Amino acid sequence: MEPDFPLDLDLPAVRGRRGRTLHARLRAAILDGRLAAGAMLPSTRNAAAALGVARNTVAAAYDRLVAEGYVLPRTRARPVVADLRARRGKATAQPAVALNPAWRRPPVRAPLADAQDAAPFRLGLPEHRLFPHAAWRRVVLRALRAAARGPFAQGDAAGLPVLRAAIARHVAFARAVACGADDVLVTAGAQQAFDLLARLLVAPGGTRVAVEDPGYPGLRAAFRAAGAQLVPVPVDGEGLRVDRLGEGIGVVCVTPSHQFPAGVAMSLARRMALLAWARAHGAVIVEDDYDGEFRAEGRPLDALHALDTEGRVCYVGTFSKCMFPSLHAGYVVAPPWARERLAALKRCTDAQADTVQQSALAAFIEEGHLARHVRRMRLEYGRRRAALEDGIAHWLGEWLVPVPSAAGLHLSARIRRAADAPRIVAAARRHLPGAQPWSVFALRTRAAEGLTLGFGLADVPAIERALRALRQSLLKTAPRGKSQSVQHGV
Amino acid sequence: MEPDFPLDLDLPAVRGRRGRTLHARLRAAILDGRLAAGAMLPSTRNAAAALGVARNTVAAAYDRLVAEGYVLPRTRARPVVADLRARRGKATAQPAVALNPAWRRPPVRAPLADAQDAAPFRLGLPEHRLFPHAAWRRVVLRALRAAARGPFAQGDAAGLPVLRAAIARHVAFARAVACGADDVLVTAGAQQAFDLLARLLVAPGGTRVAVEDPGYPGLRAAFRAAGAQLVPVPVDGEGLRVDRLGEGIGVVCVTPSHQFPAGVAMSLARRMALLAWARAHGAVIVEDDYDGEFRAEGRPLDALHALDTEGRVCYVGTFSKCMFPSLHAGYVVAPPWARERLAALKRCTDAQADTVQQSALAAFIEEGHLARHVRRMRLEYGRRRAALEDGIAHWLGEWLVPVPSAAGLHLSARIRRAADAPRIVAAARRHLPGAQPWSVFALRTRAAEGLTLGFGLADVPAIERALRALRQSLLKTAPRGKSQSVQHGV
Repeated sequence: MEPDFPLDLDLPAVRGRRGRTLHARLRAAILDGRLAAGAMLPSTRNAAAALGVARNTVAAAYDRLVAEGYVLPRTRARPVVADLRARRGKATAQPAVALNPAWRRPPVRAPLADAQDAAPFRLGLPEHRLFPHAAWRRVVLRALRAAARGPFAQGDAAGLPVLRAAIARHVAFARAVACGADDVLVTAGAQQAFDLLARLLVAPGGTRVAVEDPGYPGLRAAFRAAGAQLVPVPVDGEGLRVDRLGEGIGVVCVTPSHQFPAGVAMSLARRMALLAWARAHGAVIVEDDYDGEFRAEGRPLDALHALDTEGRVCYVGTFSKCMFPSLHAGYVVAPPWARERLAALKRCTDAQADTVQQSALAAFIEEGHLARHVRRMRLEYGRRRAALEDGIAHWLGEWLVPVPSAAGLHLSARIRRAADAPRIVAAARRHLPGAQPWSVFALRTRAAEGLTLGFGLADVPAIERALRALRQSLLKTAPRGKSQSVQHGV
Repeated sequence: MEPDFPLDLDLPAVRGRRGRTLHARLRAAILDGRLAAGAMLPSTRNAAAALGVARNTVAAAYDRLVAEGYVLPRTRARPVVADLRARRGKATAQPAVALNPAWRRPPVRAPLADAQDAAPFRLGLPEHRLFPHAAWRRVVLRALRAAARGPFAQGDAAGLPVLRAAIARHVAFARAVACGADDVLVTAGAQQAFDLLARLLVAPGGTRVAVEDPGYPGLRAAFRAAGAQLVPVPVDGEGLRVDRLGEGIGVVCVTPSHQFPAGVAMSLARRMALLAWARAHGAVIVEDDYDGEFRAEGRPLDALHALDTEGRVCYVGTFSKCMFPSLHAGYVVAPPWARERLAALKRCTDAQADTVQQSALAAFIEEGHLARHVRRMRLEYGRRRAALEDGIAHWLGEWLVPVPSAAGLHLSARIRRAADAPRIVAAARRHLPGAQPWSVFALRTRAAEGLTLGFGLADVPAIERALRALRQSLLKTAPRGKSQSVQHGV
């Protein structure tokens, strides 16, 4: 005798619906494994007593489960849960189906995805301690209340007009990108922008796409998924080596404000050369301006887009850095010929806009919260950037050369001697958790090795502590004492 | 003499930053058109007086604008805004760039996108008046507060584990889909699920994909964008005509619970035939179960997925109907061979999860709000469905035959005589705004014409009023009196 039913089923008080609910809850429990294969159900009599329902009700529910194959009938009163492994697709082996050949091989995860989530030097995560969380909550709550007052909406997949207008003003002010609301397509982060651009620009099996090497793996993944042939192009102190762009390239992807990961800004001469090259070769340029808002004070270079007179540059921005990544919001400022096509592609992959979040974001921008936050973070990130640059030069100058950088929320340093690289990378993994060696982002070129350090989560004291610890560690593990560094000092 | 500067520039109080801010704000105003080409800036003297800054500060800002080409220097003190049309890409003509041939032609918008936003009989919009807005606000606010307490996160693009687990329990209970959290991939609505599946399953230029005709345009758009050859297959009273599936088809897309738009449920025999056909032909089935939660009470058919023993069915669900569309959340329950591949594709197009919204949705499900809302709406939608079905039979029986339907939030009716169709469709446009003729969703087949009426926004009184108005209108416009309908009645 069981006094209780072996499962909390929470049947409704209304009599008429209990039988159906009992059936549905038992079925769900069998399907999700709470009632395992072979488990014996209570007898109808015991179940009826435990659940406070009529015995007929239990019997009807059991009968239906038997008819559906979830339960095996027994000659005596207690049925048994069937083995549903077949239903669960025990065939983990792939049935004979045709797949897109591009996806036949099991996929490999991009390197950044493996980085520890909140490691202090991790790339791409901005500072949460200084974000105006309360202001964001207020605009979200207001948008939720507004949305509750009328019928649900299916916002245009291209983005709410109010947000597109706010973004246009934001990029005009922050990045000198000349555009109006119509030029802006709101995307689910920069990654979706890359994906849409790749699908628009890459002809299957054909288009050659130049990417910076080392460069951002997410962009490469999107273009590769669209069938592009990636052509790695080296980067030097002025950015992408335009002179190394080969023939037949249809798209060039660059990070001119702050090369990822090496950190250099593309020189004006190089920008002009790139635009001239694109004109001569009929190519489109994808400008990934992922953290250009956090440029240092002074006379930073505007976006490459601002120099484009022909409509060749597709400018990609994101709120992942200047706000936070799980906001999941980015945008393309697209030339006229690309707009409707990108919007149509967006509708194929994403039928509607998240109207609540988009209204909230528009309000956050329009009310000046974003501009204030960016101003504040420019100063703070500037301090961290300086602390890293100075600290590396001061404590780690024997091994690392900081790459001067005027933007963003990571700083890079070249490793002086290739022979030291394995030891330095290993020590950095321990003392600068989250920092990444450039080789992680390299495709082909055997360029210099370096380290890229995010400083979104590491404040100045944390930076100084970590750099000193790295120095101690490198001194301890130095091959043959300090002879090398002494020689170098001479 | 101008007493004021021609623009509200809102300069900061801190002296050191005023020059840079003045420059940036003027530049933004030029870029976004507030200061038009040819506009004369105030003299440095007047500007300094109006803005309360030193004349040198204004001069430095003007100089920088001149150097950057935003402003033309004049020999006298008042510079003029440059013509930036070239920068804005006045070349609306497309420069010579290579595009994916699939997107060379300007895109056409899918029919549903044109439907009036809150028309009472519009398809696909659920009832907002009965949604538990306050409960949703509470879980969102809680998720926002929790997110503010720690570092920002880049959630896995496949979805937060807590949401995947909640969805697995939801579909097991509501749709008898046997799955665990690992089987679930969270997507940005069903549309993204179609897009990811299309990109996984369609080989460029190759794969033949069977779609229901008439059928859902969004799904077709996704598969077409991936390069599929769409093969329209007719639908009858038992669903997709499996006997009409031709050779060489690799993917079959179906809406078995509630055919879109015709409203029939696929019979069990047809389901078994479809699965057998897929096994024999090595095909994959995409099951779009867009509103299966709102099945009527009784013995509805479970999802097709529940009958699949081989891992051939990719089940697509959405929260657009059982919650609201701008939530922008859907999911795929994927067979083992597809999981990692779909997750990798998802990462290509969408690098991270919206962790706040996903936590909120998980809580909404786990705390029972979704199940309660679905139960409530099942009853309400059931009443509306009955009102439509009865009303059409009662008032419009001479012209329309309701298609019996046990699910969802729209009801369909076949037009009795093809000759009447134009007149009925025209009258329905007036009296049932938002309702759609089947021909809008047809690809090729010359099947019967019908009407599909959403009832997410129309309650029972509104339904009855509209149907009576349609009757009056049809009686008035009947060709040659009532002779036809009398003949029909004999």
